[in-house]
Amino acid sequence: MGNSNQVGTKMYQWATALFPICRSLTGQGVRDTLKYLQQEIPDLTIESIKSGQQVFDWQIPQEWNIDHAYIENEDGERIIDFANSNLHVVGYSEPVDKVVELEELNQHLYSLPEQPDAIPYITSYYQRRWGFCLTENQRKQLTDKKYRVKIASSLLDGELNYGQLLIKGKSEKEIFLSTYICHPSLANNELSGPVVTTALAQWISSLKSTEYSYRIVFVPETIGAITYLSKHLEQMKVNTLAGFVVTCVGDNNDYSFVPSRSENSVADKVALHALNHYVDSFQQYTFLQRGSDERQYCAPGVDLPVCSVMRTKYGEYPEYHTSLDNLDVISAKGLQGGFDILQQCIKLLESNFKYQVTVLCEPQLGKRGLYPTLSSMTEDYTDVITMMDFIAYCDGEHDLIDIANKINVYAMDLVALSKRLCKEGLLTKKGL
Amino acid sequence: MGNSNQVGTKMYQWATALFPICRSLTGQGVRDTLKYLQQEIPDLTIESIKSGQQVFDWQIPQEWNIDHAYIENEDGERIIDFANSNLHVVGYSEPVDKVVELEELNQHLYSLPEQPDAIPYITSYYQRRWGFCLTENQRKQLTDKKYRVKIASSLLDGELNYGQLLIKGKSEKEIFLSTYICHPSLANNELSGPVVTTALAQWISSLKSTEYSYRIVFVPETIGAITYLSKHLEQMKVNTLAGFVVTCVGDNNDYSFVPSRSENSVADKVALHALNHYVDSFQQYTFLQRGSDERQYCAPGVDLPVCSVMRTKYGEYPEYHTSLDNLDVISAKGLQGGFDILQQCIKLLESNFKYQVTVLCEPQLGKRGLYPTLSSMTEDYTDVITMMDFIAYCDGEHDLIDIANKINVYAMDLVALSKRLCKEGLLTKKGL
Amino acid sequence: MGNSNQVGTKMYQWATALFPICRSLTGQGVRDTLKYLQQEIPDLTIESIKSGQQVFDWQIPQEWNIDHAYIENEDGERIIDFANSNLHVVGYSEPVDKVVELEELNQHLYSLPEQPDAIPYITSYYQRRWGFCLTENQRKQLTDKKYRVKIASSLLDGELNYGQLLIKGKSEKEIFLSTYICHPSLANNELSGPVVTTALAQWISSLKSTEYSYRIVFVPETIGAITYLSKHLEQMKVNTLAGFVVTCVGDNNDYSFVPSRSENSVADKVALHALNHYVDSFQQYTFLQRGSDERQYCAPGVDLPVCSVMRTKYGEYPEYHTSLDNLDVISAKGLQGGFDILQQCIKLLESNFKYQVTVLCEPQLGKRGLYPTLSSMTEDYTDVITMMDFIAYCDGEHDLIDIANKINVYAMDLVALSKRLCKEGLLTKKGL
Repeated sequence: MGNSNQVGTKMYQWATALFPICRSLTGQGVRDTLKYLQQEIPDLTIESIKSGQQVFDWQIPQEWNIDHAYIENEDGERIIDFANSNLHVVGYSEPVDKVVELEELNQHLYSLPEQPDAIPYITSYYQRRWGFCLTENQRKQLTDKKYRVKIASSLLDGELNYGQLLIKGKSEKEIFLSTYICHPSLANNELSGPVVTTALAQWISSLKSTEYSYRIVFVPETIGAITYLSKHLEQMKVNTLAGFVVTCVGDNNDYSFVPSRSENSVADKVALHALNHYVDSFQQYTFLQRGSDERQYCAPGVDLPVCSVMRTKYGEYPEYHTSLDNLDVISAKGLQGGFDILQQCIKLLESNFKYQVTVLCEPQLGKRGLYPTLSSMTEDYTDVITMMDFIAYCDGEHDLIDIANKINVYAMDLVALSKRLCKEGLLTKKGL
Repeated sequence: MGNSNQVGTKMYQWATALFPICRSLTGQGVRDTLKYLQQEIPDLTIESIKSGQQVFDWQIPQEWNIDHAYIENEDGERIIDFANSNLHVVGYSEPVDKVVELEELNQHLYSLPEQPDAIPYITSYYQRRWGFCLTENQRKQLTDKKYRVKIASSLLDGELNYGQLLIKGKSEKEIFLSTYICHPSLANNELSGPVVTTALAQWISSLKSTEYSYRIVFVPETIGAITYLSKHLEQMKVNTLAGFVVTCVGDNNDYSFVPSRSENSVADKVALHALNHYVDSFQQYTFLQRGSDERQYCAPGVDLPVCSVMRTKYGEYPEYHTSLDNLDVISAKGLQGGFDILQQCIKLLESNFKYQVTVLCEPQLGKRGLYPTLSSMTEDYTDVITMMDFIAYCDGEHDLIDIANKINVYAMDLVALSKRLCKEGLLTKKGL
Repeated sequence: MGNSNQVGTKMYQWATALFPICRSLTGQGVRDTLKYLQQEIPDLTIESIKSGQQVFDWQIPQEWNIDHAYIENEDGERIIDFANSNLHVVGYSEPVDKVVELEELNQHLYSLPEQPDAIPYITSYYQRRWGFCLTENQRKQLTDKKYRVKIASSLLDGELNYGQLLIKGKSEKEIFLSTYICHPSLANNELSGPVVTTALAQWISSLKSTEYSYRIVFVPETIGAITYLSKHLEQMKVNTLAGFVVTCVGDNNDYSFVPSRSENSVADKVALHALNHYVDSFQQYTFLQRGSDERQYCAPGVDLPVCSVMRTKYGEYPEYHTSLDNLDVISAKGLQGGFDILQQCIKLLESNFKYQVTVLCEPQLGKRGLYPTLSSMTEDYTDVITMMDFIAYCDGEHDLIDIANKINVYAMDLVALSKRLCKEGLLTKKGL
């Protein structure tokens, strides 16, 4: 599997630094997160759009910020405190400061009877509400008659922020990476996406040259993706070769795949080839099991070739959307695996040319030192057979992945061979 | 399964009334049957074509009528009497009145050794013959030396009759129903087809308006279908959206499907979707197992999109084409089931539009009261997910059934949703 | 399976006569072989191309001839003698005549430890070498210190030879047969191919007329096929309807199939239909398992519709490429089977027309005596059903094999029926 965990360790450190920040669709937490990432990717720009602006069918919500929040019992003890976990407050809660009876309080409390030690992650972005999330065990201890509830939040006209990085390649055709930065203290879903995307951005930036251009965005989920598309859709429809939603890429368990809506885009083809050859096994989901920003990127009329290559998919692990999705769920190794598989997808895209053999009939490989000069039954001809098979499909119609699928090898294992044969003048490279 | 058996009871009454009539390709029995149905469908017209007329490769046969027929033994007892069962005479038997020796008689007798209590149903339309059908048990009792055989039939120039009902819809595009009225006292094959078709005709006529026009025919099998096509093929090739041969739709057992020759017409698509979702299970046959008027409707050069949706298929139940296919084989419930599945096919056709979402990216459903405002893990989102999935495929390319197949629901269950979303302005309806 | 073994016996006799000849890519052995075959096929022409000529990426090698060769021990005994088996000398060995120490000799010896009684078949066409092949058991007895090695061969500018037979048919479209005549004393791989091809050529020549023209070649493998293509490719690309590499068609065991590169050419379709219906079972290989001149015929830019229909495939039987592939491996019956299956492919190609029914709806078969006039449940309608099914698909779109595949019969079994129906005026024949 190639890479050591060096990049994984770096990514885990970033995740650790970012974990405590209270992110939401908008607000200081998002800006702090983007600024942190900007230190790692100097060319990342932080963009903004004002509250109230219309983006397609949606409106940019007010900016939400929160200073502190708690529930105090009759003894004045803070039994639930935002300072302990930013999951304790329902996202986008309006400010509140009053004493309520337990019965009323209960209507504003969210817990998980099945996971009594987990604080659920709850938001109410588009309906004014206030609420607290707590563990079922904490809830059971609420026996006082009255409680003071305090949420020192603000909902004010402000802005929604997102990050954008454009890297110029030889072609205007783009590879698109999208991740989201709107989740508070949650590790796999979702700090893994931003940190893996950051490491990929660093790696791509470090390359001397790339075939394709890159468009990499860090957006609040849903509203951020919609906002971004509302500004760039026309250009993206023309230029996007393949795109990936980077999410849930930090745990040690499964690999997973959600196809694009068309199910047969270049992104799907590349992702499936990488997953089939580079990792031991993976879960294949359908587009019906989508759940992140591919919902926007693949919507009718948007129709971008965007799929999701993940480790364990959102909703498919018990810690999902609870306080248990903490830094223990992800690891340097897990993040490294997420980075590696996406890096393979990008390498495949950068290599996936069509080739045309320059001679009619099989080339005389022997005179070029590429073929054993003695026929015999005892030698291992695996490499020669692979070369012959590869050449046999270099008809200018099949691309590298098509051929690799035909001859049951990993396309990356054909790259050196294709370069050698081009150098020998036996192949010419054609565009994708 | 929706409908009560109310329609079924009515259909069973019609079948009971029609059962005794001696029908054949031509003759008074066909006219009596059509006149009876005309009482139920006032707009049904009874058409005729003269004996000897050429219809494609065929010629309209002479008209056959029969008054009485019997075999008398030496004691003058009528041991076989047409008055007891009109199956006793080979269809289209020429008149005969003579005394024959048993040996000669035997060459004109048809019985079923394997089903000793069943009179077989035999015809000889295009070759002059006379013959009697009887049970194997009756045959065993023929021990006299001589018998008098009498068939008081006539074969004269006359006409062939069929019924036609045209119902105008918004579109000139037509849905086609064809059933046959040439079988004598046989219940499932074939009074079930005419009575179910009659009930469907009543139902369609009762609708305030329909998207499509309807062409409904009651024809003698084969020659009647050929005759009808010889007069209407050009128009039908242009207009027919989907058609169904209505046959064997009255028993309580299986559902069955024979595809059109192309196997992928709109009729096939609709029928398979209905059968997959509306009934528990069904037998899928191939076009090689066809046996009724789809032989004509799907012939090369005719190529109409016509399939068969049945209960137990002709030839697949033991009573088939014998006197045992009587009113006990069919039931109000069985006929109702046949009616229901064909009604579903028609409803599906009337609903199977393409839809195009009017906004880019997902619509903001929350502001329209269509989406929960609070994210949470504990609610049942089935309906919301179905709605989101439905919208995700409303790209103007997939029709309602395509989408239903994609998202594994019954298309009829999307109809109310599609209307709601059109009303919200989120979808526009496109033609089929 | 039709044919007796009469042709098989004749083919086995030819193989027996040809077996002792020392063939290689070039030389007298090839010319002697072609001259022998010319006696059986008078119209066969023997063509030549000079050493050193460029053919696509390759160069015609020098001509190799050999008079005698041996290894003598210290006692002057010829312990390995080319006179005993022409496999004893590595093909294209340069001349040598010297005394060598055992250690040096060993570097020029080839044996098979796993098959201690078999002499391997080894060549070194494009690299100057000398060498001897021997059994492992012979090798174990080499204990002397020194040996005299003598190979009285010559490598000189001369020519490469191949045979060509063109048979004119009604159409310029061609069926192509290719076999190879470069293997020394080896029976299944490869004398079976030349003798079966010769018998096929005799049979085709004996036909009064054929729909298609025939191009039949006997070439040295690889370089011969490349040479032939370098001279005839343009014409062959225009005219070739289907082609077959004839190889390994003489044993009694499996039948085998290697598809063309496209996997869906007319040749593939015909071969699969014949193999599915005419023999009990067969091994299906992929194009990746190719190994003979289809490597050239199917190369990118050549793209001829050529597949291989074999008995046990090269490389798949233990005697392959050893002295054990002798006349015991093949038999009159085995060769007959190889002949028969290829004859079926050719007959299928000659018969595989499209038909269009001339009437709309089903034809009235009864008036033509083609249909039982009495409906009944007790007769065997298999033939009638086949006829009706056949007609049902005679839409001018499906060819005979398409229809046969649809209705699950062997296409050859439809030929008489199609002729009868054409004669009745019910069908018209259309081109392939």
